[in-house]
Amino acid sequence: MKSFSPEPYPIADTAQQIQPFHVMKILGEAKTLEAQGHDIIHMEIGEPDFSSLPQVHKAAQDAMETGQTHYTPTLGLPELRAALSNFYRGFYGAEVPAERMMLTPGSSSGLQLLLTALLNPKDKVLMTDPTYPCNREFVRLLKGQLISVPVTESTRYQLTLPLLKAHWQDGIKVVMVASPSNPTGTIIEADELVAMAEFAAQKGAYLLVDEIYQGLVYDRPAESILSRCAHLDNVLVINSFSKFFCMTGWRLGWIVAPTFLVPTLERLGQNLFLSAPTLSQYGALAVLKPDALAELEQRRQTFQKRRDTLMQAMQEAGFAPRLCPDGAFYLYWDISAFSDNAEAFCLELLHETGVALTPGTDFGHYRAQQHVRLAYTTDEETLRRAVEKLKRALRKRAPLSNT
Amino acid sequence: MKSFSPEPYPIADTAQQIQPFHVMKILGEAKTLEAQGHDIIHMEIGEPDFSSLPQVHKAAQDAMETGQTHYTPTLGLPELRAALSNFYRGFYGAEVPAERMMLTPGSSSGLQLLLTALLNPKDKVLMTDPTYPCNREFVRLLKGQLISVPVTESTRYQLTLPLLKAHWQDGIKVVMVASPSNPTGTIIEADELVAMAEFAAQKGAYLLVDEIYQGLVYDRPAESILSRCAHLDNVLVINSFSKFFCMTGWRLGWIVAPTFLVPTLERLGQNLFLSAPTLSQYGALAVLKPDALAELEQRRQTFQKRRDTLMQAMQEAGFAPRLCPDGAFYLYWDISAFSDNAEAFCLELLHETGVALTPGTDFGHYRAQQHVRLAYTTDEETLRRAVEKLKRALRKRAPLSNT
Repeated sequence: MKSFSPEPYPIADTAQQIQPFHVMKILGEAKTLEAQGHDIIHMEIGEPDFSSLPQVHKAAQDAMETGQTHYTPTLGLPELRAALSNFYRGFYGAEVPAERMMLTPGSSSGLQLLLTALLNPKDKVLMTDPTYPCNREFVRLLKGQLISVPVTESTRYQLTLPLLKAHWQDGIKVVMVASPSNPTGTIIEADELVAMAEFAAQKGAYLLVDEIYQGLVYDRPAESILSRCAHLDNVLVINSFSKFFCMTGWRLGWIVAPTFLVPTLERLGQNLFLSAPTLSQYGALAVLKPDALAELEQRRQTFQKRRDTLMQAMQEAGFAPRLCPDGAFYLYWDISAFSDNAEAFCLELLHETGVALTPGTDFGHYRAQQHVRLAYTTDEETLRRAVEKLKRALRKRAPLSNT
Repeated sequence: MKSFSPEPYPIADTAQQIQPFHVMKILGEAKTLEAQGHDIIHMEIGEPDFSSLPQVHKAAQDAMETGQTHYTPTLGLPELRAALSNFYRGFYGAEVPAERMMLTPGSSSGLQLLLTALLNPKDKVLMTDPTYPCNREFVRLLKGQLISVPVTESTRYQLTLPLLKAHWQDGIKVVMVASPSNPTGTIIEADELVAMAEFAAQKGAYLLVDEIYQGLVYDRPAESILSRCAHLDNVLVINSFSKFFCMTGWRLGWIVAPTFLVPTLERLGQNLFLSAPTLSQYGALAVLKPDALAELEQRRQTFQKRRDTLMQAMQEAGFAPRLCPDGAFYLYWDISAFSDNAEAFCLELLHETGVALTPGTDFGHYRAQQHVRLAYTTDEETLRRAVEKLKRALRKRAPLSNT
């Protein structure tokens, strides 16, 4: 018996257009070099090097031992939704009832759920360029229209009210922002965020705030838009237990939605994923308790020291990044003095120095070939060593003449 | 500061059309009655009553203790993909390389991923009525066209080659079948399945086989379409660790795809979910080992005894179901002798007897009000007690006159 068709069968048009993560090429190459015995410093990976906390493990173990391995309700364990509501009250002074919380299997899933709930084909979604890659791709999958706003160091790579007004057009249904942002590590000041939420409300549009890196903020307290905009029915928040809470592999995120949207999200969730992982939800209950949060504060301080060490080493190497990131664990570095092809730059540096970086092209088009993302998810000594290697390699290069 | 819009903001048209699971109304009502102290027998829940195995818990614990709590590759842990390949060889005599395996966060996610990879708007998807609710809803979300084939006891509620030919039309891109099926518990004979796969191949269409209840088969060995059709590039399989492997809350499923489709699935997976839960993947490695599989065989035998007990009790009560399910843990019961409104029937019986059932309307339209689904996910004694309660309640009813 033979296959009736020697040709592959058709693939959907949109699926063919979905972009791969360019960093995967770097990661693959880095692993090949490692396998050959080369010393590789991974600054390309957007994941804390810390494992999850023992408290989380204990909670998951208790859940297993007591047979809590079945489906949870689609919106999540009621006690976890209540714990999140308490967390917003205690940490951010935000009054958000448990009924507005929905647990999701990772925040990618939460983002997909929200955009699926909101977007008709051709609806417009406004976001910055650069931005996290998925944001664009979900709009593409839902046949929406992307309105990209190029941003530079002048606004700390963030959307502002003047930019939002300048790029406004009819048909925009959702404005997406992230604070702190991946890939830039910058935040949006609270007043600016509130002003954008209110502007969107006036226009009948949603403001979707990615707070996935919430908690990983330096030199200032962490914030949530919900502290001041919890009453606005157009404000949507996605968050995650992956980054600040160091639970990446547990695949658990959450949504804070206006009350009127929750029944739609629940019906969609029943179909799209049924429920978020059960053990992860029990683990999350433990990670929201004071002892775990105290340990996470220690880790936050570690990330802050790494940021400071990286920034100082970059300055001393003469690279002088034009701005200091406020949070997350990324530095978005303008490499236009050295290259106008970030992908080639990353590959060459990987081979010359063993330092793996992410090309800006993963995050958009605007000056993407002139930027790379550095993740400071390794210890300070390694960060210093990485910058020293970069310095030696780049010293040999003829600087590009910039206009 | 007040909300600028007193009205809720717009929700997407398709999202508004997504149907809720009607069983949720029954479940909610059952929980209310339970809270009031009533004795409720849950035959509405599509989930094994067994918790996951101690071997799985041990593996998850080892993974936690060794810091394996980070992201895995999007396609899944290489060793788990290899273990699945071995599993197909050992159990089903199917040669399917590890490269064709992709782990997904639950099989709902796998189904979504596959249909997203394949369907352009207006592409047609053929499936039976009744079918699992998500199947229809994913087609709706992707703006595809649903071709529903009504099926009856005469084909054991399954698609057949003659039915497929009779309902064939241009533009069908995917044919979906499930064996064993939810909600009917019936299987498709291997020859029929192969014939349908070949017919679809001739037409340039995919055959997507839901093997989520694979392993839970009685009176005969479990089968996979991959034993005979692994070489066909149009055959897609979704499977799950939820049912036979009793790992519902772990949210882990898998896809077996033709090689040419894997890169597209990987790119989509990077965006849609990044990776499946890590601990669940380590747990799954343990559940595929001989000692765990031996325990699961014991559980399978328990389900078989429950099916036999339920069928016998139904016969003795005079209900005489017209066919005996081959697998899964469901009986799709024709209640037309008692009611032509399954939803009212389920609600009334719940209040009269405390037995919770799922109305056929969750699974389609064709004679859906004349069917209910019974899940035998409780012990034999409870099943006998449930049927006795149903018998007493239905004896009081005037039978409907059937044409």
